[in-house]
Amino acid sequence: MYKTILRNPGPTPVPKQVLQAMNYDMISHRGGEFKELFADTTNRIKPFFGTEQDVFIVTGSGTSALETAVVNTISPGDEVVVVTVGDFGNRFAAICEAYGAVVHRLEIEWGKACTEEELSEFLKQFNHIKAVVATYNETSTGVLNPVAQLANVVHTHSDALFIVDGVSCIGGVKAKMDEWGIDILVTGSQKALMLPPGLAFVSVSDRAWKVIEDNKAPAYYLDLLTYRKSYEKHMTPNTPAVSLIYGLQAVCGMIEEEGFDETVKRHEIMKKMTREAISALDLPLLTNDEDASPTVTAISEPADLEIEKLRGHLKKKYHIDFAGGQGKLKGKIMRFGHMGYCFPGDVLEAVSIIERGLKDFNHHFEYGAGVKAAQEVYLDYV
Amino acid sequence: MYKTILRNPGPTPVPKQVLQAMNYDMISHRGGEFKELFADTTNRIKPFFGTEQDVFIVTGSGTSALETAVVNTISPGDEVVVVTVGDFGNRFAAICEAYGAVVHRLEIEWGKACTEEELSEFLKQFNHIKAVVATYNETSTGVLNPVAQLANVVHTHSDALFIVDGVSCIGGVKAKMDEWGIDILVTGSQKALMLPPGLAFVSVSDRAWKVIEDNKAPAYYLDLLTYRKSYEKHMTPNTPAVSLIYGLQAVCGMIEEEGFDETVKRHEIMKKMTREAISALDLPLLTNDEDASPTVTAISEPADLEIEKLRGHLKKKYHIDFAGGQGKLKGKIMRFGHMGYCFPGDVLEAVSIIERGLKDFNHHFEYGAGVKAAQEVYLDYV
Repeated sequence: MYKTILRNPGPTPVPKQVLQAMNYDMISHRGGEFKELFADTTNRIKPFFGTEQDVFIVTGSGTSALETAVVNTISPGDEVVVVTVGDFGNRFAAICEAYGAVVHRLEIEWGKACTEEELSEFLKQFNHIKAVVATYNETSTGVLNPVAQLANVVHTHSDALFIVDGVSCIGGVKAKMDEWGIDILVTGSQKALMLPPGLAFVSVSDRAWKVIEDNKAPAYYLDLLTYRKSYEKHMTPNTPAVSLIYGLQAVCGMIEEEGFDETVKRHEIMKKMTREAISALDLPLLTNDEDASPTVTAISEPADLEIEKLRGHLKKKYHIDFAGGQGKLKGKIMRFGHMGYCFPGDVLEAVSIIERGLKDFNHHFEYGAGVKAAQEVYLDYV
Repeated sequence: MYKTILRNPGPTPVPKQVLQAMNYDMISHRGGEFKELFADTTNRIKPFFGTEQDVFIVTGSGTSALETAVVNTISPGDEVVVVTVGDFGNRFAAICEAYGAVVHRLEIEWGKACTEEELSEFLKQFNHIKAVVATYNETSTGVLNPVAQLANVVHTHSDALFIVDGVSCIGGVKAKMDEWGIDILVTGSQKALMLPPGLAFVSVSDRAWKVIEDNKAPAYYLDLLTYRKSYEKHMTPNTPAVSLIYGLQAVCGMIEEEGFDETVKRHEIMKKMTREAISALDLPLLTNDEDASPTVTAISEPADLEIEKLRGHLKKKYHIDFAGGQGKLKGKIMRFGHMGYCFPGDVLEAVSIIERGLKDFNHHFEYGAGVKAAQEVYLDYV
């Protein structure tokens, strides 16, 4: 017997209340009960996006959400700027390329966010950009891009749409889609929204609709025009993942009960707790404080131990599951997820287990220092 | 308080064992536990397809499964024959057209299956068909096409791939993909596989792989080459719907416990029970015995009452949920689903409630005759 602890940056732990809601009797996706459920949930998730626009629900993973944004707005030959600060930025670029876009990559060093100046300078080179695509929270590096500022740069320099991947943060961070000028904002269910994987969410601005209505690229399953038509009748064009939408209703209730501003604050606290703890354990952080994500923290390899060995040991001996690196950071970092159904006590638990594991490697640090540092952050807030 | 009864042709009732499995603690989709789960389930579902080939799991609805078959094999300008016997055949054709195929529709009267002769005659007109696409079980009409025979016709007349939509029957009917010569066979989770919606399954023959490897149409989320590459490592290219795959493992155990041949026989029994009962109630059946589906029965409108009124009344007063018609049969039929977690006793329950409802409309029939007729079929088998 052991207790497994999931501290991955997604899929994240699912609360019992959500599991219970997912256990409701199956219903027809064309009947009145479903329409009520759908209207209710699609309205209640709007604050997490900071939008008054409709939020569409696609049955699929986060990647299907990115693809939905691309295939509905980009035609072959269109020029697109992709701001990439890590592996998921590259994925977004790869999707654009798969559909024939001419992609201009603004590649930022992994572990850093894109600045307004960098985007502004980069955009000056191009005259006919259809869309600028960026990642809000880059899961592979634990970086939060300043999308409010980047949106401003995009709209100052061009008529391009600003399309944002919010997969690993929406529901756990502040998002003001309408106010900031994000044209399409997408996310997935299995991150800060604390559901199992299987739902993708796509919110669309009026500006984006004009492009979508004129777009010529082929789409069927991910065709937003069919989603909009069905949405008016509180339905989806294809059979939706009904049980996950019941779960979503429970999620909305839980976040509303905490108060979404408090949810955002909790993620900020956990970010600071985690970062102070990791530093106190004499482990290097990949990102600086300003660029760091509120939902996932990337821990770099210290001089005296192999980070993948530490990660494997923590998993095998202490049954705690952190993620490794992706892409060019594979084997070089360990990622500590602190989003969704995760609370300060969970951070303290995870930090204490990292400390215990580090002792097995004779890593030099003051035992208990990580927990103490995290506790001190916690004290400042509550 | 009331008990709701779901007798739709999907989503279908989900067994408690499956719900319980879906409640397991969330796990990382990149870790060892997931790889074991994935290898186990993808092997155990092969008998339901009648294949030794790999069965890929896509997070999406049944439509995403159809689209996966199309975008991986059909390039713009390719000629495709679509055998359409109802609304889902038309959907398959629409997907082919959305992706630029030249579609030749073999349209069969709704309520009838396509015969070998009809397909054979139709195919003689064309010389360069890339694929022939057909529906195994047409949900909108309750018709089962003779896909074994149709496969033989396709391979006799052409080098075309034979692509089959098995969404509303796989897991409840005999399927011998390899033996019959089906090149791609797809299904969804929410029908005879008695899971909530959210998983799509795609099995691919060696012949189809040759076409897929050469195909030029764009794809990313549904790109089977990426699924094949990940499958070798017992993973999916994108985040899978982990909880549904846990549920699938429970489904495999349940069908194995019954014995898949017995599962198929149970569906045959329920088909005959339903048909005999409906006839005994003096309600017309849309299809003849030979073409009728083992998973869903379409009841046509009798002369003395409006079928949509009956359906609405049964739902409102007796809390039993049948489906209405789709496409050109909208308002003209009522569909009785008997697949997945449905047993002869469930058929008797549903028939008894239809009888009760018919009495409210003063429909002329011998009260109890439907249940009796179904019972007599049941007696022949057990």
